Amino acid sequence: MLSAENRQIRLARRPVGELGPEDWEHVTEPAAAPGEGRFAGRTRFISLDPAMRGWLDDRPSYLPPVGLGEVMRAGSIVEVTESNHPGFAIGDLVVGMFGVQEHVISDGKGALRIDPATASPSTFLGALGMSGMTAYFGLLDVGALKEGETVVVSGAAGAVGTMVGQIAKAKGCRVVGIAGGAEKCALLTGELGFDAAIDYRAENVRKALRTQLPDGIDVYFDNVGGEILDAALACLAMRARVVVCGAISQYNATAVQGPSNYLSLLVRRARMEGFVVFDYAPRFAEAAREIGGWITDGRIKVLEHVVRGTVDDFPQTLQMLFRGGNTGKLVLELV
Amino acid sequence: MLSAENRQIRLARRPVGELGPEDWEHVTEPAAAPGEGRFAGRTRFISLDPAMRGWLDDRPSYLPPVGLGEVMRAGSIVEVTESNHPGFAIGDLVVGMFGVQEHVISDGKGALRIDPATASPSTFLGALGMSGMTAYFGLLDVGALKEGETVVVSGAAGAVGTMVGQIAKAKGCRVVGIAGGAEKCALLTGELGFDAAIDYRAENVRKALRTQLPDGIDVYFDNVGGEILDAALACLAMRARVVVCGAISQYNATAVQGPSNYLSLLVRRARMEGFVVFDYAPRFAEAAREIGGWITDGRIKVLEHVVRGTVDDFPQTLQMLFRGGNTGKLVLELV
Repeated sequence: MLSAENRQIRLARRPVGELGPEDWEHVTEPAAAPGEGRFAGRTRFISLDPAMRGWLDDRPSYLPPVGLGEVMRAGSIVEVTESNHPGFAIGDLVVGMFGVQEHVISDGKGALRIDPATASPSTFLGALGMSGMTAYFGLLDVGALKEGETVVVSGAAGAVGTMVGQIAKAKGCRVVGIAGGAEKCALLTGELGFDAAIDYRAENVRKALRTQLPDGIDVYFDNVGGEILDAALACLAMRARVVVCGAISQYNATAVQGPSNYLSLLVRRARMEGFVVFDYAPRFAEAAREIGGWITDGRIKVLEHVVRGTVDDFPQTLQMLFRGGNTGKLVLELV
Repeated sequence: MLSAENRQIRLARRPVGELGPEDWEHVTEPAAAPGEGRFAGRTRFISLDPAMRGWLDDRPSYLPPVGLGEVMRAGSIVEVTESNHPGFAIGDLVVGMFGVQEHVISDGKGALRIDPATASPSTFLGALGMSGMTAYFGLLDVGALKEGETVVVSGAAGAVGTMVGQIAKAKGCRVVGIAGGAEKCALLTGELGFDAAIDYRAENVRKALRTQLPDGIDVYFDNVGGEILDAALACLAMRARVVVCGAISQYNATAVQGPSNYLSLLVRRARMEGFVVFDYAPRFAEAAREIGGWITDGRIKVLEHVVRGTVDDFPQTLQMLFRGGNTGKLVLELV
């Protein structure tokens, strides 16, 4: 073992409202050696995702909540340092749900070797990882997007949002992104090729949507909930699909604000549908191939926001997501 | 003409919140004679529907709002009194959107002759009319109901609700109805064969749903919105369908209460979808045949709440819908 110590971030208590330092425990324990059929790895990159907030609440959801005192759940990329597993060799880079800790032991279940020749390692957490998979299946499967349709995505400058918009463009659709701040909006319409961007901090989103899309929205991909969801519901085209991916504006709220415009689903014969990306695991390889092709031919640009630090930086880095502090996929690189 | 006068109810102003007498104008004008290609009819039955409240608001919807000073829109059954139309003879009973007035003139568009040998005339406003069609297509097409599934319907003792529950039973499903008051609940589980009923005035709906349906709801047919919709959203089974048919609890509200539990659509991979029954017009005959068969073989009981009076009784009869005063299809029979 390169190190005898394993620094970890564990959940100290159930957070109420916004996360704070007292919600986490910073722990050091001895790094373990891998038993038979297992490998040991050193964490290189940790994924930070809005969904993490939901994992901390003690209520029924698509995954059990992170237990009090447990290592925080997170997707990460580790480098194999020792192996008693035939599928993994020293030096391999592996992606999996290894948690927020410096060292991991794995029996290989749910762990996937990545090929660093294809793309930089952190891409396997973002564009070619859960963020890309979420965008791909949410938009194409749940949203049933058809060529020539009109797509609106909120949280457009985030990990999933940047992918949603670019996949929609690759599929021949018109795309409007909603994001906070002029800088993010300029990035969307500039580098990422969105047709238009709406700055929700500076504009009336509903009015802006009506101006940009007088014929209405065919697919609305919602990452934020709250008032922006309501604005989009007011601007649906007939038979529109609203993809419920997340609600970052509500995750720290003690009472969720329901969409008061939901009756436009009736007027517009529209549907609102939720999904969980893990259900699509059998088709991840297929999606990764198509996304990989778009990255190679330049139609999709990979946007990452990499914070370099230690696992101790995890709590404050996570906060960036809820303050709109990141652009593209937020990753903590351990140095 | 049997009468030289035509009494009408017209919209006097845009109502705010609850309807009141000042929202309506009671007008008498001379009854007209039918021109070439038209027939005249005397109104026999007028349909009263929760959707009427929405037609009074000046906002974009699936039908244009009723104009100020216009005769109130309503489905009704008229008896032909004079005809210059080859398709309609004196004495024929005809169903159509003829409005709240004693006498009508029609060119036959959207008018349908009914066969009083099949069922009593008012049935063509309820079980074999728009209420039945709404239940049928909402449940089977939008809700995509499958045999053996679990259905919950709110407003269960109303015109649509009584049909939803009985159609679901005819399709081999388990049905729980939500209604207000012990009397309505007893009717649902007694005469109408629902498996269970929840009295929302006396019970905690969410707890009762969990007790009745520990495995969750497959199809929730919502007629009411508000807190009951939220309770149902909290109890969905995986891949559930929420059919948004109406929101009677919200129609008189100046601000609609959005469903704060909508994120369970995500957790449960569920969808919430709206529809408008008029879209299914090409398939009404097919539905009427199947519903007619169930009425004949006794699997569906037709439940009507008939108020006998004049068109002047329309405003206060309409109020019954929003106060839970009716059981089954509410009809005003002109005497």
